[in-house]
Amino acid sequence: MRIAVLGVGLIGGSIGLAARRRAGAHVCGYDRDAAVCARALELGAIDTHCEELAGAVDGAEVVFVATPLASIAETVALALEHAGPECVVSDVGSTKRSLAAAGADERFIGGHPLAGAETAGVEHAREDLFEDATWYLTPARGSTAGVLYERLHRLLSTFGARPSAIDPASHDRLMACVSHLPHVLANALVEQAAALIAVENPKQLPAVGPSFRDATRVAGANTKIWTDIYLSNRDALLEGIDDLLARLESVRGWLSQSAEGSLSEWNERSRRERDALLGAGLVGGPVQELRASVPNRPGVIAEIALALGHDGVNIADMALSPSPDKSQGVIALWIRGEAQAGRAQELIKGLGFPVARA
Amino acid sequence: MRIAVLGVGLIGGSIGLAARRRAGAHVCGYDRDAAVCARALELGAIDTHCEELAGAVDGAEVVFVATPLASIAETVALALEHAGPECVVSDVGSTKRSLAAAGADERFIGGHPLAGAETAGVEHAREDLFEDATWYLTPARGSTAGVLYERLHRLLSTFGARPSAIDPASHDRLMACVSHLPHVLANALVEQAAALIAVENPKQLPAVGPSFRDATRVAGANTKIWTDIYLSNRDALLEGIDDLLARLESVRGWLSQSAEGSLSEWNERSRRERDALLGAGLVGGPVQELRASVPNRPGVIAEIALALGHDGVNIADMALSPSPDKSQGVIALWIRGEAQAGRAQELIKGLGFPVARA
Repeated sequence: MRIAVLGVGLIGGSIGLAARRRAGAHVCGYDRDAAVCARALELGAIDTHCEELAGAVDGAEVVFVATPLASIAETVALALEHAGPECVVSDVGSTKRSLAAAGADERFIGGHPLAGAETAGVEHAREDLFEDATWYLTPARGSTAGVLYERLHRLLSTFGARPSAIDPASHDRLMACVSHLPHVLANALVEQAAALIAVENPKQLPAVGPSFRDATRVAGANTKIWTDIYLSNRDALLEGIDDLLARLESVRGWLSQSAEGSLSEWNERSRRERDALLGAGLVGGPVQELRASVPNRPGVIAEIALALGHDGVNIADMALSPSPDKSQGVIALWIRGEAQAGRAQELIKGLGFPVARA
Repeated sequence: MRIAVLGVGLIGGSIGLAARRRAGAHVCGYDRDAAVCARALELGAIDTHCEELAGAVDGAEVVFVATPLASIAETVALALEHAGPECVVSDVGSTKRSLAAAGADERFIGGHPLAGAETAGVEHAREDLFEDATWYLTPARGSTAGVLYERLHRLLSTFGARPSAIDPASHDRLMACVSHLPHVLANALVEQAAALIAVENPKQLPAVGPSFRDATRVAGANTKIWTDIYLSNRDALLEGIDDLLARLESVRGWLSQSAEGSLSEWNERSRRERDALLGAGLVGGPVQELRASVPNRPGVIAEIALALGHDGVNIADMALSPSPDKSQGVIALWIRGEAQAGRAQELIKGLGFPVARA
C-alpha cells in the first residue's frame, strides 16, 4: 500500500512508522520544512521525501494530513485536488466541523487520534503511539465510499488504534467539554489566583492546594496550538462556556440561599457521574481511588510502584500532591477493580504508609 | 506542657502525636465518640481520655479544637468557657471568619494547617503530618495576648509546621480561590460532561482528555466535609464565582470576535502567572516540567523513579495521563531547578523513553 503523510511531526511521523512497520506500507512524506523530512527519513518514519505535495499524493491509496490545525483545511483541499479517484484523504486535526466542506468530496474522511498531543516533533514519533487509542473518524452521512472507509478503518486498526465514527458536530462539542473548556478554566483560575494574591499577600509564598495544582496543570499550554484550537472550535466552546455559566449560576443560587440539601445532592451526583464517566465500560470494573500519605523523598514512588508491580497490580493513574515545600504529600492511586485495589491497599500498608479509599 | 485536643480524628490525632513526641507534652483527648478516644489511646496519640470536655480543658495551656467544621464554633465557645485565663484556644477549621466572634476573647487564636485533608480518621494520624506545612494563624488585630501567640507559634514550630499569621478574611478569600472554587468547578465540569455524553454518545465509552481528568479529580469529594466548607465560606466563594464568571465573559467576548491576539496574550499571561504562583520563592529555582511517553505497564513508573532517585533527582510532582484504555500514556514530571531537570531529562532518555520540556 502507498501512503502519503503531509506534515511530518509527532503525529505524522508516528503514522509513518506504524504504516511502514505494521502495515508494510510504502510511505512518502511531505513537509514545508525540508529539514523535518530529512530527519524523518533518518528515523525511518518515511521511505521517501517528496519536495512537492502533488508528488507525495500521486499514486497514494491513503493520504494523511497532519499539519498544524490552521493549515489543515487548505492542505486537505490540495490533497484532494491531486489525489486519484480511489484514494482516501484523512486528517488528524483536533476539531472536525471546520473540515465539513471537504466532506462534500466522498474521498475525504476526517479523523482525530486521541494521542500524543504533548510532545511535539518527529523525534518523538513512535510506532506504538496509537496503540489502543480512540481514533475518531467523521465520514459524511450517506457516503457511498464504503471501500475507502473500510480501507482507512483497517489501516488504523493495524496501527493498534480503535477507530470510532462520530458526527463532526458531536465530536467538537465533546472535545469542547472534555478538553478545550478545562484548558480555558485552567487559565481563568490562574489569572484569578494571581490577581488575588497580588492584593492579599504579595510577599508571602502562596500556599495553593492540590486541587488548584490539578485544575491548572494545563494553564498556558502551547499558545500557537491552543489559540488555533479555541478559534477553530469557537462556537462549540462558546456553548460549553454558556452551559458552564448556567451551572455556576445554580451553585451561586444554592450558596446564596444556604441550600445545604441542594449542595449535598449536587456533590453526590457529581461523585456518581465522575465514577461513571471515568470508570464505565472498562475491563476489570470501575477504577478505585486510594490515597496514601508519603514523605516526598527520591525513591518513595519507586518503592510503592515496585511493590505493586511485583504483585502484578497495575496503576491506572496516579497523582502526587506535595505539601507546599514538597517534602511530603498525599499520593493518589487509581486501580482498576475491587480485588486489585484491595491488594494495593494491603501492599502499601505493608510498606508502612497510611492509606485509605477515597 | 498540658495540651487538650477536642476531636481526635486525623488532624487531632496527629496534633496529639506531635505534641507528645516532639514537645514532650501531656495530651488529654476528648471526642464525642468514646471509641475514637480509645483508639487514640492505643495509638499513643493521647495520654489520657477525658469523658467531659470541661475535664480535658481543665489545666490545659493549649487547647486545639479539631472537630468537624460545623461544630467548631460551638466547641470553641465551650472550650473558652472552661479554659483558664492563661490558656490559648485554637482550632483547625478550613475557614476562619466564621470564628471571628470567638476572637473577641483574646485567648482565642484561629488556625488552619494545610495538611492531610484527604485521609480521615485517627488511624491515619501521623507525628510528621505537619512537617513543613503552612499553618495559618488568625490572631485578632491589636491583641495584647502576645504570650499566648508566642506559645502557640513555638509549639507549632516544634511540630515542624510553618506558622503564618493572616487576616481571617484574606485567608477565606485565598482558600475560596485556590481550593473551594476548584472543587466547585470539578463538580460543574463533571455534570456538564455527563449531560453532554448522555445526549451525544450514550453507548460509547467516553474518551476524556487528561486535562478533564486532572480538572475533575476532586469532583464529589466528601459530601459532609465539603458542604460544610462551601456554606461556611459562602460569601467569599460567591465573590470567587462572580470573579470567575467575569473572566469567562471576557474569554467569551474574545471567542465571539475571533480575537486571536487577545486569546494568545491571555494564554501567555496564564503561563507566566502559573510559573510564578507555583514556582516562586522556593529553593532550587522554578519547577521545570518534563513530559515523557511511556507504556503503562507495572514497573515503568518505578523504573523512572528509581533512575532519578538513584541520581538524587527529586520529583516535586508527577501525573500520569493514560490513554483511554490505560495501556500507555504521557507522564508529566515536575523537577525543581534547571540542572536537576536537565539531569532528569538525560536519565529518562537513557531509559529509552521520548521526553521533552513542556
